[in-house]
Amino acid sequence: VPIPVTFLGGESGAWRVTRIDAVVGAALPSVARLEMVEGPFPGSTPAAWVLRGVTSNQRYTTAGEQTALAATQAPLGRPGATRAALIPITKSERWWALSQDQRREVVEETSHHIAIGLEYLPTVARRLHHGRDLGEPFDFLTWFEFPPEGADAFEALVDRLRSTPEWDFVEREIDIRLDR
Amino acid sequence: VPIPVTFLGGESGAWRVTRIDAVVGAALPSVARLEMVEGPFPGSTPAAWVLRGVTSNQRYTTAGEQTALAATQAPLGRPGATRAALIPITKSERWWALSQDQRREVVEETSHHIAIGLEYLPTVARRLHHGRDLGEPFDFLTWFEFPPEGADAFEALVDRLRSTPEWDFVEREIDIRLDR
Repeated sequence: VPIPVTFLGGESGAWRVTRIDAVVGAALPSVARLEMVEGPFPGSTPAAWVLRGVTSNQRYTTAGEQTALAATQAPLGRPGATRAALIPITKSERWWALSQDQRREVVEETSHHIAIGLEYLPTVARRLHHGRDLGEPFDFLTWFEFPPEGADAFEALVDRLRSTPEWDFVEREIDIRLDR
Repeated sequence: VPIPVTFLGGESGAWRVTRIDAVVGAALPSVARLEMVEGPFPGSTPAAWVLRGVTSNQRYTTAGEQTALAATQAPLGRPGATRAALIPITKSERWWALSQDQRREVVEETSHHIAIGLEYLPTVARRLHHGRDLGEPFDFLTWFEFPPEGADAFEALVDRLRSTPEWDFVEREIDIRLDR
């Protein structure tokens, strides 16, 4: 069952914001802290900004990939995973007009997105949230958690993904780094 | 861009409800009329029941299928299309746990869902709305419009789809028939 997840940027929250970079497109205002809330979307909040998404079914993985991911995946909330990143992304209308097989071709056959992510498991745990069908400004909110010694690996993961053909379809991307 | 669509069952609306059948699982209360509202979801309404969904990107079609559908599809709101059906469906957790390639295999390679739908275009126009990621009780709301002389064809379409392996994954289905 899909889980609604809200990311609240403001003056309070379990995570300290260490950096917010606008990688492509418009920026997000600076905030000191971030809170991630799982469950029904809250009504009004004192946050400076609120980003919402829903965990959902897999959209591109094959049965074999799903098995490989399940075998290596790491849970969120590991005690040693004191670093995190929230990367909101919006893809172009050109992306969404592609057929399913064309998008799969770009995601995996040419960009190896799933295979690359797998290489960094279980060091870098991640969870994908979908926002497009909710009318949110970002199509995807990807949340990553890793230990301090996984920071270089995380940097490599992000760099590799940004150099793929899939990223030609990214028209807005924010990179928010956190620790606790 | 996804369009939010609300179906309001109650005492008013452009469509007269001629029948509501619970095909699988729990029923929906009887109502006299139905209104379809496109755009931001309304707040409180006097409706007896409210079903919500979002048009979204294609999830299973290949480029070839997408081209064939675009070439034959019919718009909603044709003056002669005075009959309609709203078919809310929920699929099982077993369905949603399948990988993308396994779901595609069931939808098209074994059930020919896309090919069957194509046979009834342009007589039967349809639009699919997604509700699962919104936390709605129905995963899908499919809306069909056709002229009175297309009624037999529509019945055949529905019967054929219900006899496919894909329908083994349907755990709730309501069939609402309408005219105007």
